[in-house]
Amino acid sequence: MARRTKIYEGKAKILYEGPEPGTLVQYFKDDATAFNAAKKDVIEGKGVLNNRLSEFFMTGLNELGVPTHFIRRINMREQLIRAVEIIPLEVVVRNIAAGSISKRLGIEEGTALPRPIVEFYYKDDKLGDPLVSEEHILAFGWASHQDLDDMVSLALRVNDFLSGVMMGVGIRLVDFKIEIGRVFEGDFQRLIVADEISPDSCRLWDIKSGEKLDKDVFRRDLGNLTDAYAEVARRLGVMPTNATPITKPKLMN
Amino acid sequence: MARRTKIYEGKAKILYEGPEPGTLVQYFKDDATAFNAAKKDVIEGKGVLNNRLSEFFMTGLNELGVPTHFIRRINMREQLIRAVEIIPLEVVVRNIAAGSISKRLGIEEGTALPRPIVEFYYKDDKLGDPLVSEEHILAFGWASHQDLDDMVSLALRVNDFLSGVMMGVGIRLVDFKIEIGRVFEGDFQRLIVADEISPDSCRLWDIKSGEKLDKDVFRRDLGNLTDAYAEVARRLGVMPTNATPITKPKLMN
Ligand SMILES: Nc1ncnc2c1ncn2[C@@H]1O[C@H](COP(=O)(O)OP(=O)(O)O)[C@@H](O)[C@H]1O
Ligand SMILES: Nc1ncnc2c1ncn2[C@@H]1O[C@H](COP(=O)(O)OP(=O)(O)O)[C@@H](O)[C@H]1O
Ligand SMILES: [Mg+2]
Ligand SMILES: [Mg+2]
Repeated sequence: MARRTKIYEGKAKILYEGPEPGTLVQYFKDDATAFNAAKKDVIEGKGVLNNRLSEFFMTGLNELGVPTHFIRRINMREQLIRAVEIIPLEVVVRNIAAGSISKRLGIEEGTALPRPIVEFYYKDDKLGDPLVSEEHILAFGWASHQDLDDMVSLALRVNDFLSGVMMGVGIRLVDFKIEIGRVFEGDFQRLIVADEISPDSCRLWDIKSGEKLDKDVFRRDLGNLTDAYAEVARRLGVMPTNATPITKPKLMN
Repeated sequence: MARRTKIYEGKAKILYEGPEPGTLVQYFKDDATAFNAAKKDVIEGKGVLNNRLSEFFMTGLNELGVPTHFIRRINMREQLIRAVEIIPLEVVVRNIAAGSISKRLGIEEGTALPRPIVEFYYKDDKLGDPLVSEEHILAFGWASHQDLDDMVSLALRVNDFLSGVMMGVGIRLVDFKIEIGRVFEGDFQRLIVADEISPDSCRLWDIKSGEKLDKDVFRRDLGNLTDAYAEVARRLGVMPTNATPITKPKLMN
């Protein structure tokens, strides 16, 4: 691999300067962290699986007209993405109560929510990513009213798509987190889905057995994380050991 | 005092059945609690002061056309109020960062906020009154969109009035909490300010010295709480030792 400029190293990924202006290379590490990095481990093969799965979901979204940062996969651990200005909010959509909403609002895990709920968390590891309301976001200028509307729309479209994908392979999409960023096109800005979509950032429960197929396996010590992610990939036909990009056969025209 | 039906005993107040349908008697206790009742004490004279101060603020709001539950004071510790159906949300307005917002969002205490911020906390002692966003409120049906709009308007009008009252006597209104309830008039419902407005539910800082004149004196062991509340009452001309109701001289006409 050629020498290149590292731009940011986070908990799960590294960003490098991309080959063209406005692009970045996203490298998926095997590092797993939970509870704001209080729990850490290296899970062999996780990065490879997440790179493939994020490619799979982002490609599907792009095809549906839900804009994402994904351009193309480069190799087993890397993908080319559009550089965005990340909005400092984690956008969470929940279909079923689990994790923090169960604790905070006293709702038993597994309870179906009355409707999908979109939450915003201020992205700040030092503060433990606190929940914020639209009021805080507007008052502190993290996003505008228009941005918020666009973020909610994007998040709900991702929820529709991802719920469908999962339901098709017997998996319930309990909740997920995305990040959203701004790209500038002339005088306009547009919001697009960024970061990653993978079992690291979703809760996925097998519909029949209730088995967890996501990062909770690591958070709660429920077994082998790579096996869980590989099961998701297997059901979706995303083969992590195959190094060639997944391309759909082009339709003749 | 005649025997009467106790309807609810809370941490700071007792509610009795009122003399007429749709009314209640609100009795102000001397009990002080903080940190979700982890810290407790009896502060002699606090109830008398809060009864007088809540009367004073609610009367002022009623006169301005901001509807409240206050009807009239009965004696040193009691007031007659309209019974409402309490919306299970604590509505907080903040002008300056202090307390939980400083901790959660890492904003130094005393920092002026970019604009008044209205927050909602789900009223549930067992859960520690967690912050919720409008999204949670709507999804769980605690209030409607219209209710939320009305609550924000009421809260901001209370903020305008109370900031003015305090500024007039050299006190900065840092933040406050109100509760809001529904009253039904024929087929219509209206939202009105309920519970209490007192130094128990506000943060009040002396503008010159920065001295705290509110429940933080108790929470943070900064001195005698009754002295602080009495100082607020003294500046506002609300004399707690005078048992006769405070009535403004009627203008001749
Ligand atoms: N398209 C993009 N452009 C710029 N930054 C991005 C993009 N996608 C994701 N990021 C950022 O890259 C980082 C991904 O690395 P990660 O290991 O998840 O970091 P963190 O520990 O901050 O969560 C995140 O800070 C994320 O906000
Ligand atoms: N006008 C009203 N009608 C009905 N309930 C009210 C009214 N005003 C306040 N309340 C309720 O009365 C109780 C006041 O007692 P308090 O000691 O503050 O209780 P808590 O410990 O629940 O805060 C609160 O539960 C409050 O919601
Ligand atoms: Mg991340
Ligand atoms: Mg109370």
